[in-house]
Amino acid sequence: MDTLTSKPLDKQAALARRYGAAIPAAGPWNAMIAGQLEHRSVRSYKPDPLPTGTVETLIAAAQSAATSSNMQWWSAIAITDPEKKKVLAEVAGGQKHIEQCPLFIAWVADMARHQRISEQEKVEFESMPWLETFMVACIDAALAAQNAVVAAESLGLGTVYIGAMRNDPVRVAKLLGLPRQSFVVVGLCVGYATEAGAGEVKPRLPQASVLHFERYDAANERAERRAYDAEMEKFSQRHELQAGTWTQRVLNRLGPIRSMNGREKLRMVLASLGFEIR
Amino acid sequence: MDTLTSKPLDKQAALARRYGAAIPAAGPWNAMIAGQLEHRSVRSYKPDPLPTGTVETLIAAAQSAATSSNMQWWSAIAITDPEKKKVLAEVAGGQKHIEQCPLFIAWVADMARHQRISEQEKVEFESMPWLETFMVACIDAALAAQNAVVAAESLGLGTVYIGAMRNDPVRVAKLLGLPRQSFVVVGLCVGYATEAGAGEVKPRLPQASVLHFERYDAANERAERRAYDAEMEKFSQRHELQAGTWTQRVLNRLGPIRSMNGREKLRMVLASLGFEIR
Repeated sequence: MDTLTSKPLDKQAALARRYGAAIPAAGPWNAMIAGQLEHRSVRSYKPDPLPTGTVETLIAAAQSAATSSNMQWWSAIAITDPEKKKVLAEVAGGQKHIEQCPLFIAWVADMARHQRISEQEKVEFESMPWLETFMVACIDAALAAQNAVVAAESLGLGTVYIGAMRNDPVRVAKLLGLPRQSFVVVGLCVGYATEAGAGEVKPRLPQASVLHFERYDAANERAERRAYDAEMEKFSQRHELQAGTWTQRVLNRLGPIRSMNGREKLRMVLASLGFEIR
Repeated sequence: MDTLTSKPLDKQAALARRYGAAIPAAGPWNAMIAGQLEHRSVRSYKPDPLPTGTVETLIAAAQSAATSSNMQWWSAIAITDPEKKKVLAEVAGGQKHIEQCPLFIAWVADMARHQRISEQEKVEFESMPWLETFMVACIDAALAAQNAVVAAESLGLGTVYIGAMRNDPVRVAKLLGLPRQSFVVVGLCVGYATEAGAGEVKPRLPQASVLHFERYDAANERAERRAYDAEMEKFSQRHELQAGTWTQRVLNRLGPIRSMNGREKLRMVLASLGFEIR
């Protein structure tokens, strides 16, 4: 298996990269899981094209993910056209990697397909206009996208999710010719990382903060957050990132509404694209 | 790598199991992707316990998935207590596999952690009460869960997502001691499939229906749906399922509101759990 790492099977080293000092007592291990642990987001790509059939392979993996009641609430738009990628980079506030990467996949929560079935079969679909159904469509798209990411990384490709497609869902929908009741939940850059772009595994919260046994228990959370802050401060220094600790990053991201880049309007914007979300 | 299949590297055979006659022109291939293609939901489990450290391994894979702005909007509750699993099976309308499986993971969209940071750090979080933020929390939980599924299957374990946790989010939240602003998006059974439970790969829509190049294009969708209906009808006959075609299954699932099992109330129910979703 091709992965971005040189020593995929050294479990303790992989866990240390992911957790710093707070290494969890992980059990069974294999090359596949080692590959998953090596995930990092790639924001700098070589111009090299992908092997023929790559997107079809990734979509086969994506379609193999579970889907709620087999409804298959998603579509994917594969984009290689430089003009389109330029516009998408603009929507995303100038993320150059969208222009650089040889393949950009737009993951669409697609309720339009089912709307067409309702019309073609002349049956009213009472289950469509609800938060439940909207949420399931987004989750179906996410499960599919994550399977594609795992497949891409197993082939030695780098990826990064682009949530900023939601900065302007209407412009994105027009650009990609989306019908009403569909929108791009998230984008995904796919390509070969440059040497600098391969980056470093980002530490996560200690398992004790996110994994609970039988009942939710946040008793030690504050101390765990301080330990994680220390790990992230070291990571930030190595990468010259502004927000030193995780806590500071959370405060910056969630404190002021301006950090949402207009996405607080999402509900209204989605209504204009035909989503009711009652 | 352990997988549920005996011939993981036969690409054409794997694609035929997933797509029937509509085999896509997939390119690069490896054992990892072959494993993903073999996914099927498992609804019958042996009582055998899992190796020590299995849940910690699965959560390490889950935490290695991308997370929006590194906000890590999720928690997981690992449940092995038979009494709790019995209640959860009840919530899910009597799905026996929830009681059978040795490990049940409840995937929590957890905005409570960030709410506590807001309170502890005395900074108001203006970005919390929006559809955008709620959706991102659900997607973060989904990406994490899917990485755990891939990891579990690579270890020879079976899984099935349980969306029916949302039949009664309040009862589930009470049972698991969840704080306000957190809820179980989806559950996951994990364990060793019985021989009968291993089942068969379920065919999906032809790639032509879900994968578009540069622009959304549903021009041939109706013919593709008829082809898929024929594949699903054969599958349904082999498995004695009621709805023969996919179209019939879609009509049954989305036509009458009663098939939502009360989940049309999700928005109101989540409001009672502290989610604003403006």
